[in-house]
This record gives sequence, C-alpha cells and structure tokens, in this order.
Amino acid sequence: MSREPRVTVWNEFRHEQANPKVAEIYPRGIHEALAGPLRAVGLEVATATLDEPEHGLDRRRLDATDVLVWWGHRAHDEVADEIVQRVRQRVLDGMGLVALHSAHFSKIFKTLMGTGCDLKWREAGERERLWVVDPTHPIVAGLPEQIVIEHEEMYGEHFDIPPPDELFLVSWFRGGEVFRSGCTWRRGQGRIAYLRPGHETYPTYHNAQIQMLILNAVRWAAPVGAATPRRGNQQPQEELG
Amino acid sequence: MSREPRVTVWNEFRHEQANPKVAEIYPRGIHEALAGPLRAVGLEVATATLDEPEHGLDRRRLDATDVLVWWGHRAHDEVADEIVQRVRQRVLDGMGLVALHSAHFSKIFKTLMGTGCDLKWREAGERERLWVVDPTHPIVAGLPEQIVIEHEEMYGEHFDIPPPDELFLVSWFRGGEVFRSGCTWRRGQGRIAYLRPGHETYPTYHNAQIQMLILNAVRWAAPVGAATPRRGNQQPQEELG
Amino acid sequence: MSREPRVTVWNEFRHEQANPKVAEIYPRGIHEALAGPLRAVGLEVATATLDEPEHGLDRRRLDATDVLVWWGHRAHDEVADEIVQRVRQRVLDGMGLVALHSAHFSKIFKTLMGTGCDLKWREAGERERLWVVDPTHPIVAGLPEQIVIEHEEMYGEHFDIPPPDELFLVSWFRGGEVFRSGCTWRRGQGRIAYLRPGHETYPTYHNAQIQMLILNAVRWAAPVGAATPRRGNQQPQEELG
Amino acid sequence: MSREPRVTVWNEFRHEQANPKVAEIYPRGIHEALAGPLRAVGLEVATATLDEPEHGLDRRRLDATDVLVWWGHRAHDEVADEIVQRVRQRVLDGMGLVALHSAHFSKIFKTLMGTGCDLKWREAGERERLWVVDPTHPIVAGLPEQIVIEHEEMYGEHFDIPPPDELFLVSWFRGGEVFRSGCTWRRGQGRIAYLRPGHETYPTYHNAQIQMLILNAVRWAAPVGAATPRRGNQQPQEELG
Repeated sequence: MSREPRVTVWNEFRHEQANPKVAEIYPRGIHEALAGPLRAVGLEVATATLDEPEHGLDRRRLDATDVLVWWGHRAHDEVADEIVQRVRQRVLDGMGLVALHSAHFSKIFKTLMGTGCDLKWREAGERERLWVVDPTHPIVAGLPEQIVIEHEEMYGEHFDIPPPDELFLVSWFRGGEVFRSGCTWRRGQGRIAYLRPGHETYPTYHNAQIQMLILNAVRWAAPVGAATPRRGNQQPQEELG
Repeated sequence: MSREPRVTVWNEFRHEQANPKVAEIYPRGIHEALAGPLRAVGLEVATATLDEPEHGLDRRRLDATDVLVWWGHRAHDEVADEIVQRVRQRVLDGMGLVALHSAHFSKIFKTLMGTGCDLKWREAGERERLWVVDPTHPIVAGLPEQIVIEHEEMYGEHFDIPPPDELFLVSWFRGGEVFRSGCTWRRGQGRIAYLRPGHETYPTYHNAQIQMLILNAVRWAAPVGAATPRRGNQQPQEELG
Repeated sequence: MSREPRVTVWNEFRHEQANPKVAEIYPRGIHEALAGPLRAVGLEVATATLDEPEHGLDRRRLDATDVLVWWGHRAHDEVADEIVQRVRQRVLDGMGLVALHSAHFSKIFKTLMGTGCDLKWREAGERERLWVVDPTHPIVAGLPEQIVIEHEEMYGEHFDIPPPDELFLVSWFRGGEVFRSGCTWRRGQGRIAYLRPGHETYPTYHNAQIQMLILNAVRWAAPVGAATPRRGNQQPQEELG
Repeated sequence: MSREPRVTVWNEFRHEQANPKVAEIYPRGIHEALAGPLRAVGLEVATATLDEPEHGLDRRRLDATDVLVWWGHRAHDEVADEIVQRVRQRVLDGMGLVALHSAHFSKIFKTLMGTGCDLKWREAGERERLWVVDPTHPIVAGLPEQIVIEHEEMYGEHFDIPPPDELFLVSWFRGGEVFRSGCTWRRGQGRIAYLRPGHETYPTYHNAQIQMLILNAVRWAAPVGAATPRRGNQQPQEELG
C-alpha cells in the first residue's frame, strides 16, 4: 500500500505493425502509449510483447512485476499455454492483472474467469458513455460521473463473465447496447480488474480520463501484502480431546 | 418452494383518481393491473391501498402475505411510520418484497436499503431497452435477452442503492443513460427485488413481458422456509474446558 | 421451475471397491447413497462412474441431465480432459453442478472456478458444526440453524475459491478451524453449488439433514429457462445517425 | 489515496467510568487506546464521546473527519436521533465508518444496514481464532492467516446483517460458534467496515494485530475522491429525435 507497484505492460503489438491506421495512432505501440502515463506519475514500468522470447514474460520479469497490464486482440491463440500457466500462477500468488478491452478473450483472462468471456461487438465508431455505478470505488477516483468517448467499438451484453465482485462502470452505446465496462474479481491472492475501452483503431488510450482509469486500476490491483495461506494436511489448533 | 406464495399488491392509488390519462390506462387501478396476471396463473392475490384504514396493511393482512408488491409515487410521505415499521419487521421475519418503479423512493424501500435511493429521471416517453446481464437468474425465466419498452420514464445512474446481491437487468435509454433495473437484496430472513419499469402514464403493466418479470420476482421473493435463527445470550455448544 | 430437474450423480466409485470400511458404509457406492433420497421424492436420477466408457458422461447422458452431482477424490487425474471440457460446456450452456466434498479438487470444479481450490485438511473424525449464515437461501430450506456431524474430515480456510456469489453455510471444527461449506457461483448460464460434507469413511450421506441439503442444492441448480444470449457481431438496435 | 485520512474515534466512554475492571484495562478510555496506534503512524486523530455536547459530533467535527471509528455498547439509546441522522448523511456523502464490536447494535450501524443486526453472544472469556478468508483484502495487509485472542466475548451466527460486499475474517470460538468478523459494505459514497473484536473487559485493543487491523480498516474506509453523482430531473444527453 505504501510503495507504488512495479508494472509490466504486455501488448500483442501486431496491429500497429500491420495496419497503418493503428500505427498512426500508436506509432510506438499500444504498450508505450499505456506505459507513458504510468511512468509520468513515477511508476516503474516495463513492457513486453508477443514476439519477444517467452513473449517477454520470463520468470525474472514476472517475479519483478506487481501488476501486469494486458492488451491483446488478434493473436490470442499465439500466446503459449506454458506462458499462460506461468502468468496464471503469478496472479494466484498475488500479482495484479489489469485486462484491457479485447483482452476479454485472452487465454489468461478466460482461464482465470472460468467462463467463455464472449460478448456482442460492432465496429461502427459510435459514441460510448461510461457511467459510474459505484462512486465508492478507488478505480474511479478523480473522475467525473460520466466518461464520454466519441468513437469506439461497441461491446454489448451478455458479457459471459462470472458476476463481478465489484461493478463500477456501465457503458451506454449509441446503437442501443449496454455493457459492464469496469469490473473486478479476486483469484487466489491476486486482484483482477477489467476495463472495456481501447479498440486499436481509435485514440482511446490518449484520453486523459482513460489514462487515469488505468492508473487507478493498476494501483488497486497491487498486492496488499497479506500472509500466504498455508494449505494441506494440518495438526489441530486445539486438543481434540 | 412447493406451494405458490400468497401475494398482497399495495398501490398508492392516487394518480388513477387524479389524472384522467392514468385512469384511462389503469381504469381499475395499478393494483388491479398488477394483480390480474398473478391471479391468472393461480396465485392468491389481495390488494391494499393508501387510503384504506392502516393503508390496508393491518397485521392480519401482513401475516397472511408471503410476498408484498409495492407501487407508490407521489404520496410516499403519507405512509405512516408505524405501518412502515410493521412492514419492515415482516420483511425481516421472512416476507418477500417486490418494489416497483417509483417505489425506489418509498419509506419501506429506503429503510431496508439504508441509503438515499435517489436517481436521475426524465419524463420524455423515450425508448427503454432492458438487457439481461445474468441469464442464470430465475427472475428472467421465460424472457428474451432484451425487453424493449417504446415509451417510459427515464431513470439514470447513479442509483443510490447498496451494491445489489444480484444484478440481472440493466436498462439503456434513448437519451443516453443506463440504469440497474433488476436487482435483489437480502434483509434478515426476507428477500427483496427491485424492478424499474412502470411509470403511471404509460401502459407498461399491460406488457406481457413485464407481467412475467413481476410474476417471476414474486415467486423468487417467497419465503424459503429456513429456520428462524436464535439470537441473544447462549450457552456454549462445547465444554469450554 | 415448474418440473423437477433430471439428475445425474457422478461418483468416482473407487474407495468403495478398495477400502472395506468405505464399502461397509456405502455398499452400493456413494452414487447410490446420493441417488436414493433424490429418487425418494420423485426425481429422475441416473448415475455415472469413472470406469464406465466416457466415465458414463457421453453426450446423450449430459444432454438428458439438468443437474450433475459430482463426488470424486483419489482419481481426479484419471478424468479425461475431453470429458471435463464436455461437462464444462454443458454447465456454461445451463446444466447445474453440485460439487460435493473432495470434488473441490476435481478438474471440472477447478476449471470453472479459475483458482487452485486447495484448502487445509485433517482426517481425525472430529465434530463439525455447519452454521447457517444466510437464512434466506433456498438451499437451507427446511433445515435448522445448525447441522452437527459427529465425525468428519476437517477442511479449513483459506479455501482457494473465488469469493462465492452466495455463502450460506460456515463450518466450525473441533480442532480450531472454520470453512465456507455452502457456496454458490454462476458460470455462463449454469448454476454451481458447493457443499463440503461427505468424507468417504464417515456415514455422512446417510444423514437426513445432509440429504435435504443436497436435494435443495439440486433444485436450486436447475436451469431457470432464460434465453440463451446472442453473441458476436451485431447490427445496431438504433440508427447510428 | 495519497494523503492519510483524518480520523475521529468515537467512544461511549461509560464502562471505563463505571467498571473498575474496564478502567484498569483502558485507564484513559477505549477512545485513547484506539487513537494511540493511529497517531503513532502519523494520522491526525480526534476523539469524541457520548457525554460531550452533541456527543462531540458537531458539524465542524464531522466535516473535518474522513473516517469515523465507533465504539459503543450499553448506551446506544442515548445517542440522539438527530446526531445519528447527521452522521448517516456524512457517511452517504463519503465519510468512512469503522464499526467495532458492540457497535453492531448502534443506531448508526443499524440504520445504514437496514437490518436488525442482532447475534448470539456469551461472556465467558473464551478463545477466539480469526481466520483470513480473503487474502486479497487490504484490511488484512501485514497480518498472519490467523489472529488468536485468548479471551474474548463470543459472538455467533446468525449475525443479522445484509450479506457483506466483502468478507475477509471468520471467527472460530472455543464454545462452538462461528462469526463473520470482518466485513465491508458501501452506502452512498461512504465505505463501511465492521470488525468484531473488542469487548471492554478484555485488553483486545492493546493487541498489536488488532491495532493493525483497525489501522488498515481506517485507510480502507477513507473517501476515494470520486465525483458526487448528480441526481434529479435531467436533460437528455442525446437528441431524443
């Protein structure tokens, strides 16, 4: 709680190289766009991408990570199962995870949720309004009661997730859908947040309010420092008499 | 679980007498419009209204009620505190409560929630889309994934309620707002459901899907038949040795 | 909600054949001990065991199952991954799952939870007291505020599960531990309940209160009959204008 | 999140003056015993007691309070309803509340919960074991998986509270009961924590682990700084067209 979390931003980093439109919006990659605002407030932030060895997520990197931010979309299947299991174990052991936008369909998110994680979607650049439904939640600190994004991909319900432990944002879309856009869950000793916005063809991660949302989520997801529970066969605490 | 709950539908019954537009939609009162579809499937349904003695909620009536359905709007303040306390105690003792639409601001709902229960609103007859966000919930049994109401009053977030135990419907409104429209809470031994739709100037309670929603909520809110917990000073279960 | 669910009781069925003590308590197998009380109230109950072809869980069997009851312990690893995936998909599609005792460590339970599902344990035949902490829950219908089991295996916290959607039973053990013994979760369209008691070397499933708990859980977990959500690419509901 | 919360510790302060045994344990009052460890880490802490004018809770004091810690027992009824309403409004407006032990029966806690808040109890100085059931919760930061208190009053289920938003501690008592001892709820913009331990005749608040629990709860309950939601009649965000 006292010191700032050490962050690794993971990005698939494929759209930026394949699609000039995306490259124009995020010339240094989505990971750098995400890392910048976190670094600007003093956080220690590393990046990792799909095409690095071990996707940039070797044990040393994960051991030095308090919170992992995840963005992926078209290449979820290329993430090696072995790495997914490694990341999953780190989350269960206490590393925070902030899953962004299309990361809803990443292997790591799906395996931690236990559900299909599918949803409705539409790429029509329509207006999104994210309404705060829990004004006590630290992830909406410093933000207004509504965030408006002029052009975004639509995600609609039913979002096939377990009922979130906390729901703090619900999106309205111009075309008629709603979506649970800000959610949290606990898994093992790890804290997980999902934030909906961030389709690669819109400059969403340059929006200062979305940047603040992500910063808040990173701080929220940081390990709290509780004891690791003992498990397995136990002697009685009291005489069984 | 086996037998059907005995229901009392409580209605303020003032708009119908003061506003010809409402009287035209609900000539026998909102309470009769609500009671009809419940009776049609065989439930035993009584009605009670504000201007009856004790608002129609004497002890005998409440003792014979498994689930109370509540509709009120302009005269919340005229409900006597003594009756509110009586209803509250019955809920804590196991009677179900289904609060409809503007009942969000009723004394009985507010005292059971512990919050202000205020919200945004607008009477513009705009389109509402109620999306199912929990397809495992019994209250949406037999319903499609979306209920569309062409003309309704808008209710918008933040709805000042405790985070619901279960959230199964989220509304989209044409004018840009969202709302947690189907929620449940537990209080004492009682089960409470809130269903948003039903402004008095629209024929919402003649909508078969809304009628089914209310029927499902009534069945869901019925007492489950668990033991009444003992409380107060207790002898030990085990020797303290 | 109207008709009774069709049940399949799955049992590993190994202890009964390898350990005379268990065979004496459950001469026809734990599955028959579980099925009996369900049949006695009129439910249609099939059984399936590990050593049958496809573990007795071929598609036809699963398609004809509304609620699957699962008991396994020493041979979790022998359950084929393909069958686990098949059962998981049926749960996400709406089949209920009631996981009993050591099923906490079954592949199907772990994959639906997304966590490690480990816990503390001790086989000392000590007293367990299951206290009702939610007297509004249908699974404790007809039961007293406390169920006492004279001899059981101890399970202790931390139980590595996602925070349950509903917690209705907490166990006290003579040796000093507590445990969240009655829990529910939603996954996809499926409803999942976990009930702690039932170590194979004690006659727990002959206890009428535990039998009622399981019957209640089966009814609670039955599919509710809500619409299957549509997902994927969608046309707008409203003109995007 | 950045600066430490300003705290007011409220204490009934009657037992200490009437019962020499309590006076011996808490010679300067329970409020000073609670305030000390908070001040020791640098928090700004005021105290207030029942017999001060306005119970020490005038508007100026409340306006300067980020988190209110509450201890009361024998004189709940002497707290003026007007002051309770004032405190309640401050909680709904964002002030945190940490309710300790017998504060479960205080007017302020009961009005915010909406339930009876009764429980089982026994004064037998028996052993309590508080087990962590959520190792991701900030309120158990820095604490072991179990806190043992050699002599405490017993509180047992059913504790008549709304299902907590978060449950992080469950107590085991020597005499056979369990209790949900660490819980949180949200009300309006305010965050509320309940911590069970602290009967006046035992030196529980001199226990360093309990002191840390309270410090963590105070920090957790601090206002997050989200926007105050607007409510009431609203113009549409979008053209209703």
